[in-house]
Amino acid sequence: MLEPICLKPVGFVEEGIPRLGEPYRPESRYEIISTIKILDEYVEALEGLQEYSHIIVIYWMHEEKRYKPKVKPWGIERYPEVGIFATRFPPRPNLIALTVAELIAVEGNKLKVRGLDAWTGSPVIDIKPYDYYDIVKNPRIPWWLEERWKELSEKKNYKTIAPWLGP
Amino acid sequence: MLEPICLKPVGFVEEGIPRLGEPYRPESRYEIISTIKILDEYVEALEGLQEYSHIIVIYWMHEEKRYKPKVKPWGIERYPEVGIFATRFPPRPNLIALTVAELIAVEGNKLKVRGLDAWTGSPVIDIKPYDYYDIVKNPRIPWWLEERWKELSEKKNYKTIAPWLGP
Repeated sequence: MLEPICLKPVGFVEEGIPRLGEPYRPESRYEIISTIKILDEYVEALEGLQEYSHIIVIYWMHEEKRYKPKVKPWGIERYPEVGIFATRFPPRPNLIALTVAELIAVEGNKLKVRGLDAWTGSPVIDIKPYDYYDIVKNPRIPWWLEERWKELSEKKNYKTIAPWLGP
Repeated sequence: MLEPICLKPVGFVEEGIPRLGEPYRPESRYEIISTIKILDEYVEALEGLQEYSHIIVIYWMHEEKRYKPKVKPWGIERYPEVGIFATRFPPRPNLIALTVAELIAVEGNKLKVRGLDAWTGSPVIDIKPYDYYDIVKNPRIPWWLEERWKELSEKKNYKTIAPWLGP
């Protein structure tokens, strides 16, 4: 029989993205610099991380409570209702989130990153370096998501595309 | 105070990669087709997933028991000892693994994927669609990892590079 699987936070997001309604709301998460504070007992496990330009931050969406098997993406009427596994929205069976972020600096127990979409206080579960096998050159995504990207890219001041995707 | 964070498997890897010593051992994981069986209660959450070419499979490395703050990559003497967060090796504080895999088919409660590096029986924790913001065009990685990739790519029959990275 399988033992229960429980997680230990390895750190917390100290300065994350502002919640809706909070004062500063930049146009795009790719502009935001966040800080992750790693717990003292795990600081030695960071050694060598600064050699990577990007990391994958796995964190827990601790303020989400529900599980919704299906969602209407961004509540947009003409988009199809899709399974939660076909989206990156929060109300999943396990509240795990994953963001690729640019690693700006490792300073003692703090990581400075750009592009993380986690709220302040989110428990960080794992840090993984971004490696070549994480790149998919031409992924196929659904039409509604293509449309969403297109719309966002036409929005003034909205940097849809992460800086590292630039030409 | 934070509630304990526990995970529910949403499925299991049914045909995963062979363990060392097991009969069939292909040269590269990118050639292996695995099956993930999703638990009945989560099958509806798969709707629309087939529109994506690639998914991120988050699974639990249930046979790993230790935590090692530092490791010598592949035990290779000339490589530096690095923190576990600077690698993708298993003995992490939380035994979460993450693989980008090609989604070949969704058939009822089964996902057929190519490139997953999970052993048979691994609990699957989440399935996320691969989207544009997961692409980093030119990530920087440490010299020892560059060297490792180079060595593997020179090895006969070893497909270092996932098919989706091809030119």
